[in-house]
Amino acid sequence: MTANDRTRRSFSTAEAVAILQRTPATLDALLRGLPETWTNGNEGETTWSPFDVVGHLIHGERTDWIPRARIIVEHGETKDFEKFDRFAQLAVSKGRSLAALLDEFASLRRQNLQTLNALNLTDADLDRRGRHPELGVVTLRQLLSTWVAHDLDHIVQISRVLASQYSDEVGPWRAYLRIISGQQG
Amino acid sequence: MTANDRTRRSFSTAEAVAILQRTPATLDALLRGLPETWTNGNEGETTWSPFDVVGHLIHGERTDWIPRARIIVEHGETKDFEKFDRFAQLAVSKGRSLAALLDEFASLRRQNLQTLNALNLTDADLDRRGRHPELGVVTLRQLLSTWVAHDLDHIVQISRVLASQYSDEVGPWRAYLRIISGQQG
Repeated sequence: MTANDRTRRSFSTAEAVAILQRTPATLDALLRGLPETWTNGNEGETTWSPFDVVGHLIHGERTDWIPRARIIVEHGETKDFEKFDRFAQLAVSKGRSLAALLDEFASLRRQNLQTLNALNLTDADLDRRGRHPELGVVTLRQLLSTWVAHDLDHIVQISRVLASQYSDEVGPWRAYLRIISGQQG
Repeated sequence: MTANDRTRRSFSTAEAVAILQRTPATLDALLRGLPETWTNGNEGETTWSPFDVVGHLIHGERTDWIPRARIIVEHGETKDFEKFDRFAQLAVSKGRSLAALLDEFASLRRQNLQTLNALNLTDADLDRRGRHPELGVVTLRQLLSTWVAHDLDHIVQISRVLASQYSDEVGPWRAYLRIISGQQG
């Protein structure tokens, strides 16, 4: 990769943190105070609403990213990661308000970024390897890169779920809206 | 559509405005102060960076949504919309900072929502028809629904462009990240 390549970046902890620290405020700006008709909408059947996604992100802060980073740093490949429960947010979120979930996500993320900073990771640390129960050997660099991409993936999901509520209402413009036509471009 | 249908909404001006008024703060939270290595990254060749997308949204505020709504209200189907220039942001943005573009987008959006509010649209108004130069007859309801979906489409695009910078760095997790694998789910 050259310095001028605008399509790919090498991982840098500082650049990753720049995204990770912005996600809670981004979701707050997009979702807090929005009518529940929007935040509880989904894409049918067991698909997730924006409310569900915030619960999933909270569960990730508690059990996925930093706990797995600690396993790599402390145990390397000798200890598998815990499996991540993709349905835990149903319990996390039950009976709670979206505002309370957004607050909790912001608080957990802040703490986790403090923990990450305290780990003081070197390039050699980022090459350390752990063992994912399904994917096999992964590096700490890959885990932290995935944390970033995972945030952005769920911002995509929330935006898509919101827009899809208007799939009929946009009429002939459907053809121009990749978010509704389902084409990625 | 029933009140319990969580997958589709009928258009409501108040609900549309609830999204439209949040977009500037959402983009601000996501992008302001982010290193330029992120905000200038694209997906190769002539694809857009987050910086380019904000310029495009500014051009839409100036020439697309409210100007077209006015044409429908004042001229109906007797006057075609102006064609929208999808490359105008190159001129809009040249030599400016992302912070300045975010400020301008927020200011234009605020003004345009004031204008929308002043139009005091009734359900009958929302059924009024205009003529799109390529799509043919469209209604004001469809135009305003598309304004909402278009915002969300570009939040998706910005998030995807950011995440795609780490396409290599996530390693085997690529398989789980729709934002990188390109699958919509």
